[in-house]
Amino acid sequence: MSSSNTYNIAIVGATGAVGQKMLETLEDRNFPVNQLKLLSSSRSAGTKAKYKGETIVVEEATPESFEGVDIALFSAGGSVSKSLAPEAVKRGALVIDNTSAYRMAEGVPLVVPEVNEADIKDHQGIIANPNCSTIQMVAALEPVRKSLGLSRVIVSTYQAVSGAGNEAAEELRAQSQSFLNGEELEANLLPVKGDEKHYPIAFNALPQIDMFQENGYTFEEMKMINETKKIMHLPELSVAATCVRLPFFTSHAESVYIEVEKQGASVEDVKHLLANAPGIVLEDDPSTQTYPTPLSAAEKRDVFVGRIRKDLDQENGFHLWVVSDNLLKGAAWNSVQIAERVLANGWL
Amino acid sequence: MSSSNTYNIAIVGATGAVGQKMLETLEDRNFPVNQLKLLSSSRSAGTKAKYKGETIVVEEATPESFEGVDIALFSAGGSVSKSLAPEAVKRGALVIDNTSAYRMAEGVPLVVPEVNEADIKDHQGIIANPNCSTIQMVAALEPVRKSLGLSRVIVSTYQAVSGAGNEAAEELRAQSQSFLNGEELEANLLPVKGDEKHYPIAFNALPQIDMFQENGYTFEEMKMINETKKIMHLPELSVAATCVRLPFFTSHAESVYIEVEKQGASVEDVKHLLANAPGIVLEDDPSTQTYPTPLSAAEKRDVFVGRIRKDLDQENGFHLWVVSDNLLKGAAWNSVQIAERVLANGWL
Repeated sequence: MSSSNTYNIAIVGATGAVGQKMLETLEDRNFPVNQLKLLSSSRSAGTKAKYKGETIVVEEATPESFEGVDIALFSAGGSVSKSLAPEAVKRGALVIDNTSAYRMAEGVPLVVPEVNEADIKDHQGIIANPNCSTIQMVAALEPVRKSLGLSRVIVSTYQAVSGAGNEAAEELRAQSQSFLNGEELEANLLPVKGDEKHYPIAFNALPQIDMFQENGYTFEEMKMINETKKIMHLPELSVAATCVRLPFFTSHAESVYIEVEKQGASVEDVKHLLANAPGIVLEDDPSTQTYPTPLSAAEKRDVFVGRIRKDLDQENGFHLWVVSDNLLKGAAWNSVQIAERVLANGWL
Repeated sequence: MSSSNTYNIAIVGATGAVGQKMLETLEDRNFPVNQLKLLSSSRSAGTKAKYKGETIVVEEATPESFEGVDIALFSAGGSVSKSLAPEAVKRGALVIDNTSAYRMAEGVPLVVPEVNEADIKDHQGIIANPNCSTIQMVAALEPVRKSLGLSRVIVSTYQAVSGAGNEAAEELRAQSQSFLNGEELEANLLPVKGDEKHYPIAFNALPQIDMFQENGYTFEEMKMINETKKIMHLPELSVAATCVRLPFFTSHAESVYIEVEKQGASVEDVKHLLANAPGIVLEDDPSTQTYPTPLSAAEKRDVFVGRIRKDLDQENGFHLWVVSDNLLKGAAWNSVQIAERVLANGWL
């Protein structure tokens, strides 16, 4: 792309937790923006936001909103993507969709640039951004897979409330203050806004993220399982996930157990691979208590890995602790990064 | 034991988080107490506590404190147990020790009554109470092992701050309020009081519980690994653990993956075994969002199990979510329960 080329960008869901971070990330990255359209539901239309010092009024997203748009970043829920993404594509926009609407669809690349950037070029107008908890895990596993192979993944997650949106973060804040005041906790949203029951998240842990499926797994768990196989092009990979919502605001952490295919790999081998991998920061030194935490990873674009250990019984087994800002690499940054790779490769 | 028999009981570490729960549990269980001695370090001596409406003054623990004591419940740290438990035994007391001092020692039974009550009778004066996170896990796994066999365990824990004592709970409370006030967080204690660095726990997750060992695992992780094998009499069992401290006050939760030996077991089989197991409450119904949480398990003596799923790839693999009050079944109640079984079986 020529440095003089600039593009018309739309953010759909601009007032949400991820939409706000998309706006910040475009600015931080000095993305080649010509016109920027901020779109939302009719309810949030009229809200104002700042981009590089300029005030932009959020407009209601309609099919016509996408006239003249080059790239549309969607993060306003699956139903909005289902109705409006085809309209955007019809009008010539490339859609980068951060909802689950198209992730598993044939012909839609599901992309984490550090893992499968080349898949982007096969897009037919829509590129899907994976689930937040999936992105950081596959980013950490790909450098290992490339050198050592990968046959098995078992992950237990420690997920921040901001993954459920700004309202969920507000609920944690309000409940935490109530708890400290010795008051009753009011639960109206988590674990899943649209589900029947709500449980307090403050000073608690909820082993449910998204709705339960027929097989007893939650949709979040199935997203991690299915998306990992698609992104890594490993349909036969054994993947298991348990997803847990926890009382912190930002960053997901993951306790990941893997089995590699190559015999005889050491902890040092795995550390070396991760220390030299794009988008990954190795923070692993038990002698200085160095490991990533949700607070230390917040507001950063990288994926942080620590606590790498060899399993004590399984020859090819390793344990890792993977942490990343769920709104950045898990959502906004990965979407903007896809857009950057599209432009860099001339795949628009 | 005849119902008219009563016993002289001592609690060492009576002012600590676990000691206070031991006192409550003796009262709740209407334990056959004749005299109750509350012992502590010289620093806490003189503190007052209530037992069945009577005020008891806490005394400094010395070797002579154990004269005439029948059962001494220790929970004042490993070094106190190392110096005073032998003195108590010498004076004829049975020691039930809730520290890690003797757990792996030859000749010391390490007991979770639902799992290995019969080991108690081989005691030589000291019975060890396992680590909190180990107790609830083996209590949940034993009914499965008995019927289906058990070859492998991979656990990721979600552990409450009260496991690090009352001071740690205070630190979480103070940091949480600071965070909500928009103030800097002061970290002086967690993850490990005696270690070099301290990190904030409020709205965070710390992948370190207890000190790091030579092999890169923490001592808490090695406790889970080694104690599980000893309690279950399965020296060849493959056990892996990742232990994480989280910002809640009470109850540990665990995401546990197991492989059983018997072919063809179903989720219904596992649920049936757990529903009928002593000390276990099955709380597992995705259709009604029923599963245990740290808040729901707090102040209860049982171990709660939910989210039971069959692994989607491994024929004999199952996933479980195990929650229990770390100060009760994880510490005070398991110790008092051992004392009850000692008396019921005439093993004093």
